[in-house]
Parts: sequence; C-alpha cells; structure tokens
Amino acid sequence: MGDKTITPAKGKKSVVLSGVAAGNTALCTVGRTGNDLSYRGYDILDFADKAEFEEVAHLLIHEKWPNSEELLNYKQKLQQLRTLPEPLKRVLEQIPATTHPMDVMRTGCAMLGALESEPEARETGVAREIGDRMIACFGSILLYWWHFSRSGNRIEVESPEESIGGHFLHLLHGQRPTASQVRAMHISLNLYAEHEFNASTFAARVVAGTDSDIHSAITGAIGALRGPKHGGANEAACEIQKRYASADEAEADIRARVGRKEIIIGFGHPVYTIGDPRNEMIKGVARSLSAEAGEMLMFDVAERLETVMWEMKKMFPNLDWFSAVSYHMLGVPTSLFTPIFIISRTTGWVAHVIEQRIDKKIIRPSAEYTGPENQLWKPVGERE
Amino acid sequence: MGDKTITPAKGKKSVVLSGVAAGNTALCTVGRTGNDLSYRGYDILDFADKAEFEEVAHLLIHEKWPNSEELLNYKQKLQQLRTLPEPLKRVLEQIPATTHPMDVMRTGCAMLGALESEPEARETGVAREIGDRMIACFGSILLYWWHFSRSGNRIEVESPEESIGGHFLHLLHGQRPTASQVRAMHISLNLYAEHEFNASTFAARVVAGTDSDIHSAITGAIGALRGPKHGGANEAACEIQKRYASADEAEADIRARVGRKEIIIGFGHPVYTIGDPRNEMIKGVARSLSAEAGEMLMFDVAERLETVMWEMKKMFPNLDWFSAVSYHMLGVPTSLFTPIFIISRTTGWVAHVIEQRIDKKIIRPSAEYTGPENQLWKPVGERE
Repeated sequence: MGDKTITPAKGKKSVVLSGVAAGNTALCTVGRTGNDLSYRGYDILDFADKAEFEEVAHLLIHEKWPNSEELLNYKQKLQQLRTLPEPLKRVLEQIPATTHPMDVMRTGCAMLGALESEPEARETGVAREIGDRMIACFGSILLYWWHFSRSGNRIEVESPEESIGGHFLHLLHGQRPTASQVRAMHISLNLYAEHEFNASTFAARVVAGTDSDIHSAITGAIGALRGPKHGGANEAACEIQKRYASADEAEADIRARVGRKEIIIGFGHPVYTIGDPRNEMIKGVARSLSAEAGEMLMFDVAERLETVMWEMKKMFPNLDWFSAVSYHMLGVPTSLFTPIFIISRTTGWVAHVIEQRIDKKIIRPSAEYTGPENQLWKPVGERE
Repeated sequence: MGDKTITPAKGKKSVVLSGVAAGNTALCTVGRTGNDLSYRGYDILDFADKAEFEEVAHLLIHEKWPNSEELLNYKQKLQQLRTLPEPLKRVLEQIPATTHPMDVMRTGCAMLGALESEPEARETGVAREIGDRMIACFGSILLYWWHFSRSGNRIEVESPEESIGGHFLHLLHGQRPTASQVRAMHISLNLYAEHEFNASTFAARVVAGTDSDIHSAITGAIGALRGPKHGGANEAACEIQKRYASADEAEADIRARVGRKEIIIGFGHPVYTIGDPRNEMIKGVARSLSAEAGEMLMFDVAERLETVMWEMKKMFPNLDWFSAVSYHMLGVPTSLFTPIFIISRTTGWVAHVIEQRIDKKIIRPSAEYTGPENQLWKPVGERE
C-alpha cells in the first residue's frame, strides 16, 4: 500500500480527517467491503496482472482503456518523451550520490516544471500531456543522476524498451530486462497507480486547489510520498526482510519484537479492514521472480512473517511487503523503491489534479486552537 | 491576505473542509470576531508595525519573543546563513529568465534539501535551524537567479544589511535601502508570516504528516502558494492597480466590471467577515512609501477602488491589495511579490511542520465517489 503502515497508538487517532469527505472523485473506490480496490469502476483484481502499465496510465490520465491501436500509439508517444533537456541534466549533475533519491525526484520534477512550465490556462488536455511527459521521463531523471553521481557517466536516457517499467530496468542495469521482469514491473506499477485520497494524492489536490501548476502539485505529492509513514514503507519492509538468514530466525525475532510492542512496517492499513487486495498479486510476482532466480530466502522470510503477524496480531501485509521482495529480486537498490512508486502513482496524482481543477475548489480546513489567549506584547527593550 | 480571494459562485461552496478542524495549533487564531488575527496569542495590531520581522520569525520558529541580546544574536546568525552552496548556484544558473519566479523558489528549496538534507530523526531543534536557514537564504536564491538569468552576473549574496527585508532590497537593487524601506519590509513580512490552516500551510502539514523531511513540506507549501487563488493574488492586484491613469478612470472601469459580475482580485476573504485586520496597517505603509516617492497615483487608484468595492459589494480589501502598492513603491517587480510572501510565511510553515510532527498524525481524508460502478474489464484486443 504505502499509504500508512503505522498502527495507531492506543486511545489516540493517528489519522486525521479519516472518513471525512474532502472532495469528489470518480477515480477510485477503496476498502468498501474491507479488501477491495477499483480504478474508475474496474476491480484491480480483474486487470492488474493482465494489463500493461501503459493501459492503466491511459485509463487514469486519459480516462479510458486504450484499444490496440491507441495503446501502440500511446507507447510510442511515451517512448519519445523520455529524453531530458540539457539544463535538467546539468542540475542532476549537481546532486551528490549521498542525496536521498526522493530528494532527487523532488528537485527533478521541480526543475522540469521550471523548464517546461504549464501555461496559466490550466487546460485539461495540457495537464494530460504533462502527465505523460512525467511518467515517461521520471525514470530517466532518476537513473541519469544515479549513474552520473556514482560513476561520472552521462548515460543515454533513451532505450529500445517499449514499456516504462522495462525502460527503468534497462537504464538501471544497462541491459535488456527479461520478459518476466518487464511483466513484474507492469503488475507492480499497476497496483501502485491509484489509491483515492491518500496523503500524497491529497497533498497534490491541496496544491492544485489554489489553481497552481501541475508540476507544483506533483512535486508536493513526491514530498509527501517520501515520508516513511507513506511511500517510504516499502524501503523499511525490505530492511526487515534482508535482516535474517532464515525464516526461523525471522520468526523468532519478530515474535520477540511484537512482544515488545514494536511496530512492524508493511502490515496493516488504515483503509482496509480485512486484507490488502493487492497482496496476493504482488506476492505471486515476488514468488515467481524468486523462483526464477533460485533465491527463495527473502521470499520465505516475508511469507513466514506474514503468517506470524496474522497469528499474533491479526495483521495482514499491505502492498509494500511483497513489493519489497519483488524489487529486490529485480536488482533494484532499496533506496530506489519509492521513486518507482512515484512513477506509478503520478498517473493517479495527475488524474486527481485534473478533478480538483474541474471542481474549482480550494481546500482550506480549520484548526482547533490550543495556544495561549490575549498575550500582552512588550517591545524588545522591555522583555526579560 | 493571499489565502483566497475568489468569491464563491452562487449555490456552490468554493472552499472545501471550511470549518472542519484538521488538527490542533497553538500558532494562530484568525477571524474569531470577524476581523482579528493573532500569532501565539499576540494580536498582530499590537506588534506588526513595531517589531522587526526577525522578532516575529523568532516568535514563530523559536516559540518566544527574543530579548535585546537574543535578537542581536539571532540577526547575526541569520546574516551568516545567507550564503549559497556552489551546486545550488549552478542549478539556479540553469533556469531561464522566462521561468516563473515561484518555480525558481520551488526548485531552489527542493535543491537546498538535496544538499542540506534533514536527518531522519526529525528533531525539533534541527527543524528550527533549517527554518532559519531558509528565511535567511531564500532571498539569496531568488535574487542570484534573477540577476544571473538577466545579465549573466554572478552577484554576491552577502550584504551588510541587518534585516532579511533589507537584504532582499539590497540584492534586488544593488544598493542600501532607506530606513523607511526597511521598515516597510518589516511590516509587510510581519503581516504575511502566519495565517492558520490556509492552503499552503495545510499542504505543508499534509506532507509533514507522513514524517517526510522539512524541505519537502516547504517545497509543497511553495507550490500551493504559487496558485493565483492563494499567494498569487497580490500580483493580480498589482496588475489591476497599474491599469489606470487616474482614480476616476479606475472607478468607472471597476463599476462596469462589477456590473458584469467580474471578480476583482484582492477583495474579500473566506475567513474574515468584517474586514481584514491587516489592511489598515499595510495601507499606511503604502501611503507613506507613495508620499515619500511623490507618486500617489497607484495608491489613489487602490484607495478609490477600496471605496467603490465597499459601496457596491460590501467587500473589503485583503492584505494583498495594498501590499501590491507597497511592493511596487519599493521597486519590486510584480513577479517577485509572491516570493517575498514565501520568505515571510516560511516562519509559519516551519512552526506548523513542527506542530504536525509533535501531533504524530497523518492527514488522510476520504472522498465521495462519483464514478461508475462494477465496470466489466476487457483485454486490449477485445476493446473497440
């Protein structure tokens, strides 16, 4: 999921505005029966392991499933949008290797908007074009910086790959991914694409509500997704799973930690009550990638902890849990997990920005005042 | 004000979550009696034209009014934080002169965080230090880019000015501002510093709620402030005021526009019902700057339109209205108005980020679903 994985402290709500409608959406329903998720009325279980990510992106950004010809055209168009303007490359070259990759994405998106600024008219068609541009080039931004900051190499940000997920793996590893790796990326990107008013999407809508530009809205969303209580959760899950030399060791340790009331990242969800509908599908991806590689340890650890957490706490894994195994088996460094989430969720963010604009509403709640009243001001010379 | 200036369309609420508490704050009360504003319990009318902006920044970021010695130390500290790291300068040099200055600020803040990233621990003391860094160097960021993109000059971002407002004017004009210009900047910055859960502050809190870093939160807030329904309003106000050759011409034209039900930016406010408590003070600033310069036209136009809008619509000017006159008389180009607002409001944003972290709450509302139900998915080959 990545939309929050911390269990609320007893007697204190850790989620604000939970259940309070902050707007309308035709994009998503989530958790109505406890474990369901749909995009524009389509159950994710019907398509997420069958459709290519570009189909889902088209559904979210362009409001319909593409037919064969439209899909072909869309993929070709996205391929042509992978290139980066030279000033953006120069900016990425200024960012050290030690910088958090989410800071790179935040800066890259902000700079993209400084170079390819949205016109003031805020036309829906233009917003869609910018959304396409973002999902096409975000992988290029990340991996141009990744290689340059580590090796000084200015990589080509073009690749022969047809898909966004394939392009990402190609730029990362410098070679063509296998068909099953590309398929794994499609499924993962499909599952992360949209999730109603989660914190990053809501941040995008708050920004868009002021009639600001779409790069500002997506930059804000990236900043929200960066938080460990949101998108950062899959990175934390990976750290847990990599910690153990066997499933037995993992079980013993986690039982002790749960006994000490430690929070285990990757379990539970504020919106789902029964289970995360995305779990079985991403678990299947994790299993088959692990089997193909002949490396079952991390999967076994993750699966054992799934059983333990259910038995001890009746908590289910969310999408982050087996996503971590999947990305690890795709050879993706842990710190690049959340940037992949960005590429996927940008489709949902862009669609929400467009909705917020059509609604023409600014989001401006109130606050409970808890501070002092009627304080007596003194000029600086009279203060103690 | 800058927190929304569009009149709601009839029968449709243009503000979402209005009156719904989305958290606690000890920072601000606004509009309780229809025209009041306090920071940490201190009425702005008591101090905003007397205190230096650094005092108000200290109140908001460091939770108390500084005494004389503390103020001196704080100002010296802020002076030392004006310098920019070389990689940030290189980034700013990549941004064209045609870019919206708010895009520059968004990119500059994002890049500052890529270079001076907040440690994961999210300590309050560290957040305060970063807040000080931001208010000290944001002017440097803006004006380094401003001059380089226009003339190719790599300006010094140090100045002998004691104050943030003075530093801004010094870098902009390349010379020492007068005492009354510095005083005008203090008052303006004081009035813009904090305004409860306005859209940009709320955006910062949504980002901070995921436990993301403070640069992400402030970058998101800058993106929200950029919108013409929020911070961008003072720029729009200026365009209106500059349009006319006399107050009579302005009155005739605005009467016609109001008759056509056009919206006049700079009037009304969703939180204040009686008036904007900041108006008289900023109007005084605008008047005295205009008198000193011997150029009363823009002030006269603005004042006449204040009378007309009250007479015709019972609408009062908000802070943006006479801020526009004031900044114009300070020789600030219109496109730099909202970046000044950033420098001021960063004090409030930082304080809100700290509050949100102490609350440990993620902000995650729900949505009303308005889309189709139970759609039948077809594979791409079967679609029309």
